Amino acid sequence: MSREGLDPIFSPTSIAVIGASRHRAKIGYAVLRNLIVNEYQGTLYPVNPKATSIHGIRTYPSVLSIPDPVDLAIISVPAEVALAAVEECGKKGVPGLVVITAGFREVGGAGIEREERLLALCRQYRMTMIGPNCMGVINTDPEVRMDATFAPTPPLRGDISLVSQSGALGIAILDHAKSLGIGFAKFCSLGNKAQVSLNDLLAMWQDDGQTKTILAYIENFGNPVNFVRIARDVTKRKPIIAVKSGRSEAGSRAAVSHTGSLGGSDLAAEAVFNQTGVLRANSIEELFDNAMAFSLQPLPRGNRVAVVSDAGGPAIMCVDELVAQGLRLAELDAGTVEFMRTWAPPEASLRNPIDLTPQASLDDYRRALDAVLRDDAVDAAIAIYVPPVRVDEVEVARAIWQTAAQRGKPVLCNFLGRTEESPGFAELVKHSVPSYLFPESAARALGGMYRYAKYRAREDGETRTFPVDRKRAAGILRRAQDEGRTRLRDAEALDVLDAYGIRIARSRFVADVDPLPAAAKDIGYPVVLKATGPGLVHKTDLRAVILDVRTEKDLLEGATQVRDRLREARTAFDGYVVQEFVRGGKEVILGMTRDKVYGPFLVFGLGGIYVEYLKDVAFGLPPLTDRDARRMIESIRTYPLLEGVRGEPPSDVDALVDAVLRLSQLVLDFESIQEIDLNPVVALRKGDGYRAVDARIVLGPDVKPPHPPGPEEGAHSSIQTPSGSTT
Amino acid sequence: MSREGLDPIFSPTSIAVIGASRHRAKIGYAVLRNLIVNEYQGTLYPVNPKATSIHGIRTYPSVLSIPDPVDLAIISVPAEVALAAVEECGKKGVPGLVVITAGFREVGGAGIEREERLLALCRQYRMTMIGPNCMGVINTDPEVRMDATFAPTPPLRGDISLVSQSGALGIAILDHAKSLGIGFAKFCSLGNKAQVSLNDLLAMWQDDGQTKTILAYIENFGNPVNFVRIARDVTKRKPIIAVKSGRSEAGSRAAVSHTGSLGGSDLAAEAVFNQTGVLRANSIEELFDNAMAFSLQPLPRGNRVAVVSDAGGPAIMCVDELVAQGLRLAELDAGTVEFMRTWAPPEASLRNPIDLTPQASLDDYRRALDAVLRDDAVDAAIAIYVPPVRVDEVEVARAIWQTAAQRGKPVLCNFLGRTEESPGFAELVKHSVPSYLFPESAARALGGMYRYAKYRAREDGETRTFPVDRKRAAGILRRAQDEGRTRLRDAEALDVLDAYGIRIARSRFVADVDPLPAAAKDIGYPVVLKATGPGLVHKTDLRAVILDVRTEKDLLEGATQVRDRLREARTAFDGYVVQEFVRGGKEVILGMTRDKVYGPFLVFGLGGIYVEYLKDVAFGLPPLTDRDARRMIESIRTYPLLEGVRGEPPSDVDALVDAVLRLSQLVLDFESIQEIDLNPVVALRKGDGYRAVDARIVLGPDVKPPHPPGPEEGAHSSIQTPSGSTT
Repeated sequence: MSREGLDPIFSPTSIAVIGASRHRAKIGYAVLRNLIVNEYQGTLYPVNPKATSIHGIRTYPSVLSIPDPVDLAIISVPAEVALAAVEECGKKGVPGLVVITAGFREVGGAGIEREERLLALCRQYRMTMIGPNCMGVINTDPEVRMDATFAPTPPLRGDISLVSQSGALGIAILDHAKSLGIGFAKFCSLGNKAQVSLNDLLAMWQDDGQTKTILAYIENFGNPVNFVRIARDVTKRKPIIAVKSGRSEAGSRAAVSHTGSLGGSDLAAEAVFNQTGVLRANSIEELFDNAMAFSLQPLPRGNRVAVVSDAGGPAIMCVDELVAQGLRLAELDAGTVEFMRTWAPPEASLRNPIDLTPQASLDDYRRALDAVLRDDAVDAAIAIYVPPVRVDEVEVARAIWQTAAQRGKPVLCNFLGRTEESPGFAELVKHSVPSYLFPESAARALGGMYRYAKYRAREDGETRTFPVDRKRAAGILRRAQDEGRTRLRDAEALDVLDAYGIRIARSRFVADVDPLPAAAKDIGYPVVLKATGPGLVHKTDLRAVILDVRTEKDLLEGATQVRDRLREARTAFDGYVVQEFVRGGKEVILGMTRDKVYGPFLVFGLGGIYVEYLKDVAFGLPPLTDRDARRMIESIRTYPLLEGVRGEPPSDVDALVDAVLRLSQLVLDFESIQEIDLNPVVALRKGDGYRAVDARIVLGPDVKPPHPPGPEEGAHSSIQTPSGSTT
Repeated sequence: MSREGLDPIFSPTSIAVIGASRHRAKIGYAVLRNLIVNEYQGTLYPVNPKATSIHGIRTYPSVLSIPDPVDLAIISVPAEVALAAVEECGKKGVPGLVVITAGFREVGGAGIEREERLLALCRQYRMTMIGPNCMGVINTDPEVRMDATFAPTPPLRGDISLVSQSGALGIAILDHAKSLGIGFAKFCSLGNKAQVSLNDLLAMWQDDGQTKTILAYIENFGNPVNFVRIARDVTKRKPIIAVKSGRSEAGSRAAVSHTGSLGGSDLAAEAVFNQTGVLRANSIEELFDNAMAFSLQPLPRGNRVAVVSDAGGPAIMCVDELVAQGLRLAELDAGTVEFMRTWAPPEASLRNPIDLTPQASLDDYRRALDAVLRDDAVDAAIAIYVPPVRVDEVEVARAIWQTAAQRGKPVLCNFLGRTEESPGFAELVKHSVPSYLFPESAARALGGMYRYAKYRAREDGETRTFPVDRKRAAGILRRAQDEGRTRLRDAEALDVLDAYGIRIARSRFVADVDPLPAAAKDIGYPVVLKATGPGLVHKTDLRAVILDVRTEKDLLEGATQVRDRLREARTAFDGYVVQEFVRGGKEVILGMTRDKVYGPFLVFGLGGIYVEYLKDVAFGLPPLTDRDARRMIESIRTYPLLEGVRGEPPSDVDALVDAVLRLSQLVLDFESIQEIDLNPVVALRKGDGYRAVDARIVLGPDVKPPHPPGPEEGAHSSIQTPSGSTT
């Protein structure tokens, strides 16, 4: 990246449009025209060897022939000549590039090589590049006024910035937003992300005074670990609202063929969003709804909402959605209700939700909204208005925004039965009150604001590094790899965990029957006897486990039985394990899967046969803080069982948090570990810890880390990751 | 109701507007004006003793002074004089009334009595009445053209009919629909539903040739049992799409204060929708989205969808939602893909979802849509278009509807970045292709169509009546009631179930220790020993249950232990039960709760400690068909466990279906049973049935049925139920 980073791209004092054209059908025509008609405040240099002027501006045959310095070059020439143009930019000393030209990685084959050469040129000349295969960039700052896209209309000025991995979707968002009256600060179409990534944009916009809210359309994370680190910082200062496509497997596959890059598991994506406070919108519509609310209104201080309406039906629909969003109906102060009673129509229902009925006057409506906003028991209000025959909707809109402006609490609005182009809608948005077509949309947007406010208020916690026996674990893993094994032996797996301080049930592994009694005596009766060996994946199904063995006689008889059963089932085994019999407690599972894109992610859930079907599990992306680990455990629906129900004692959740953190450290230390499955872990009562009873550890064929940390790593590092084209 | 039913109200040849007014601020002014300007095809008679003409039409001092017959009277005079006006209508022989006047049940006190007198007059003179406290009715039939509301604008003509329990919401729906270009056949604001109910409207519209799709906004069901019966019939012929508010507890409470009627449990409402095939929309927006799709396009024959787009991002978002809706991406025929390959842009991705990229021409787009619609592997298509700079969006819209019209498969459209008032949107809807602002909305609407198509195709099944010992059950229940007990004894509960052929674990109840050995011998060892008595609600917690008792010695020792424990816990008990020890199998729960509004509803789920937190249960509203019962069982997420996983044998689901049906018969036979809880029921392997092991039966204080069936019951019965006012 250039020394100046992204500044030459978003705030250039001069722009060369390479491929500027006189032909309306060309992108170079549209880009130059957009820059001119939207009153770019710097100097434009069209570059075209075949023209002397375009749109009345003197044209240069090459960027090298421009007499003045150039901050930004926008490249829209065909792919075949793009590299030559880029090299000229390098020679000229142009620090910023936006490569609109397509025909790179996204077309495969020669395109991939072409993109590599493009990138090499950027490195050689220290240029910062957006694209290739993108739709351009926008900055509405009055001192810049740059619309360097070929989009049909420029956005309104505002304080939202949008970064999109799909240029077409980005432009569509700007278009629709304009019709809603929502303005933007900056826009960036990322294209193939050959150099500048989503992470770079987030890092830049974190400090951008013009940007109050960040929107993102994401198809894949180039470097999820960096994303987590950067997004975590950004969301402390301003909200990020993101749509991440590829939620379904089919959608994820479609994204692969769209971008040429893996989307990775959506479960991991969810963990990323949970840990970073990035608000995930489930649809493009939700992205809009949230963007409008965040950009126009303050965050709520709590979840107590008042609904003021002139009709009962939509108010009830609104309440249903509020509750679904984790908000609740404010219990109004008795004084507020009494005050309203003195002037409200007799038909009105003044218990929240407030239904003033169509009998209410505009003044009644205004007073009711003001009364609830003044009530200390109210954190936010939703104003619903079903326009009746006789009142001008603009007057109603005016009453609402004037009242809202005075009280410093978020107010969201729904004028039911209208369109987004109706005058009341426009009046509200123009005066900073978000307006929605439906009451449920207002409730959903308020829910998003509340979740973000809650995230901002929550404690980060600390990342801990435990003193562990890393060397011992490394030795075990290396031996297995040297022997070409991808699965650790049961004893090895428990040993690795033990080296990291994860509490395992005391175990003795023996090759034969003879040493069994001594091993059991050492552990102390009662014990569990199991056969062990690489072929024994489902020990219980094979009846190769005997619980609660109390005497030496039972132990030896059991060993014979197990051996006979396995012979009968023609299953080879290596020996026996004698294990402490852990009684009582709750069975939980703890594990790790290494995703191709996200790297390792941890799984926690309650054990038992139902879990598989009810999917009551939580995910976490290491490195986790202690708070992250606790939130992960607390987030499963059956968590109350760990707290103790029906007079049962609470389980040792602190110890489980410790286990999650140690597991996190283990999987970050060893990239070679592909999968860990601790099933079951018996959580004992508070103070008694837990015991991992069975452990499976699988090694990957490849031990190289997916994202090697290097000296260049950082906010503006532009780490190269395989990512592809988008439209 | 009048002999002619609802015909005089929806197709009157003459209308008296009682309360017609020259004052713009009066409802009577707006109603008469709407009738005139929207060109009502019959004759209008304004009634107002103080005017000689209104809007140029001769006025009558009373309905009695009108020289000609009157089909319908619309009443908007104040509540105090409304009854007199209604009585005059009765004397005049007016068969239909729409009472807009408010001030009845919804205001409580004297209003309730006034509504009763109103109803008595309707009965006396055999008049059919909509309202009171409603917003009127509409019929857009060109031979009628009646807008008898005070809504600002009349709806477009179309084939959707809307019935709303909230007048304001109804009017808002008509308003918004008009801006989308969606038309209506009939509209009815129900108001207080004093006489004509939702059920009556559904029954009428079932046979209405003008109505193709029915929409409903519902706050409470007056008579859920009738609703189930009628809706089941209607949905066989045309779709009903309903919004039911009060999903949350807070929303439900709000609905109570809105309508003065109980909303009832939302779980029961869900069961109603599942069993009737009424499509529940979760928001007003979803109601619109579905309405547009159902009214404009044919139903899909399956769930295989093709997505054709000129941009990748929105196509992926669409796929994610399609999958969430239970639809799937069609696997295109190789020939289709090859054919597209011959002319599509090289950048295009031709594997479904098809991303033609912005490089594609309009002709490419048209051909791709046509190609997938011709593919036998495709049941429906979603066309996504992100308008680029150069192509006229109306031309694109035309290409889409022209192609869609030829293939007889549903096509839904999304023009991203546009508003509902954009020309492409209008062009599509005008030519019967539903158009949405967002790709996810199109996917969701198609999901609704698919669910309805699947419902239409599913087998109803049969309602069975088992030969049972009703007399024996009745005797047990009567005895408990006579003794003032609201909970049956354990032995009685099992007896009642046994009388209805529900298979219970063999049990012997004894008052003391002495007869225990004989009882156990009779049952056959191993047995279960439990203490029994009204204070023993949580037997296991009190350790008053001993499983797997194998000898007489153990039995007697166990009885002593149980007695000592209960003494220690100071819990009284009546005696012991010795029970067959049911081994193996899966624990399920089966129960019934009698809802104040819906009456009895059945619950089925898997047993165990997790169930409480994971809420994996299904509900059913009796009477159930055998298919209903099976679908109920199959609908829980853990159903695969009953089918047998990990080599386990399948459970006897047929027997469980039988148990559900017998329970259904039991709770319909005895209104006095308030709650039944069979927990656990052990489902044995296929062929071995099941055993109910523990049963709790609670009786209600009131034995009268909530909705007494009478001679008047029927489609047009207008059963009087407590229901309230709405706006």
